[in-house]
Amino acid sequence: MVNGDTADRARSYRKAPERRAQILASAIAVFVERGVGASLRAIGEAIGVSHAALRYYFAHRDELLIEVYRAHEATVREATAHEPSAPEEVSAVAMMERSAERNASIPGLVELYATLTTDALQAEQHPETREFVHARFRRVRADLAERVRAGQASGAVAADIDPDDAAALVAAASDGLQLQWLLDPEAVDVRRSLALLERLLPGPTP
Amino acid sequence: MVNGDTADRARSYRKAPERRAQILASAIAVFVERGVGASLRAIGEAIGVSHAALRYYFAHRDELLIEVYRAHEATVREATAHEPSAPEEVSAVAMMERSAERNASIPGLVELYATLTTDALQAEQHPETREFVHARFRRVRADLAERVRAGQASGAVAADIDPDDAAALVAAASDGLQLQWLLDPEAVDVRRSLALLERLLPGPTP
Repeated sequence: MVNGDTADRARSYRKAPERRAQILASAIAVFVERGVGASLRAIGEAIGVSHAALRYYFAHRDELLIEVYRAHEATVREATAHEPSAPEEVSAVAMMERSAERNASIPGLVELYATLTTDALQAEQHPETREFVHARFRRVRADLAERVRAGQASGAVAADIDPDDAAALVAAASDGLQLQWLLDPEAVDVRRSLALLERLLPGPTP
Repeated sequence: MVNGDTADRARSYRKAPERRAQILASAIAVFVERGVGASLRAIGEAIGVSHAALRYYFAHRDELLIEVYRAHEATVREATAHEPSAPEEVSAVAMMERSAERNASIPGLVELYATLTTDALQAEQHPETREFVHARFRRVRADLAERVRAGQASGAVAADIDPDDAAALVAAASDGLQLQWLLDPEAVDVRRSLALLERLLPGPTP
């Protein structure tokens, strides 16, 4: 028994990265399909992995949630690598429309995103989530600001609009609209509301 | 002992509404001051009320959170009753600017709001929160849409803007910007970003 345990343990260590990746993939699949509660226990039950095993591969709940979201982002990057994305080609608003459209079919991941941003507000309890969400927002705003600048360079966007203010506005509108839509799909149309922002921040004319 | 218990219990029943209101007031004070985790246990510890007592006055965590937020909204309504608020006087964007300014000094309540909206996404686990947040968004959007319509009637806002689309956009932008600001106050300026929306949805000229 003891020998068996030790051998299992050694195998488990060797296998760790692979098994961890499997668990992550199962977790993503569950989030994509329907979303789950955000507790390690709920996730473990949904993917058929014991709580102890989850704790073995992920230090805590926040680490698992962040990794799931990160892996999802990487998948999106890969899947959209062929789409035009240069700031001169795709406006800030068009970029968010694209992402909102993708998210409409994966409410579980939008829920996960909402959980991460809410957790991030409590920096003391969720230091890693705070850092992750903080850095993510900076990255998103920097990308959107560049698109606004490109719009200004092309003459489409008014020169007196501050690109950073506009970037925060577009990111906020996109997040907030997706949330309202999930809660009330008949009353809210993300695309139509975002399109209003295009009057302010028009994209390049094709 | 048994008699004493019974007498205590009877007194407690008689006192219930008063004690419940006291607990609610303490909870609001704690949220205003610094915010707490959203578990009944964390709230109980913060306000010095036993978990059992909390469970006695509030059926579950969601009920307490909703009641705290509802009581906060009532306080705001009272405190702002003297301010001009007619749709003809205050634009949709100005209304949200006002509310964002108030919220800047009570991050704990913005956290609570974020928790409620995130919980609302999981209707099965949080049916009452879902209903509360759903109804609140409908109310907020209806109010903002009326302001956009007043702007259109006065000729300030373009006639071809759909008031409901604009209302969802303004509410979303305001929520999202406050969240980004809490996470990164140096990088995000809620007022400046919201002011960009005023170009699209200008208020009545004074």
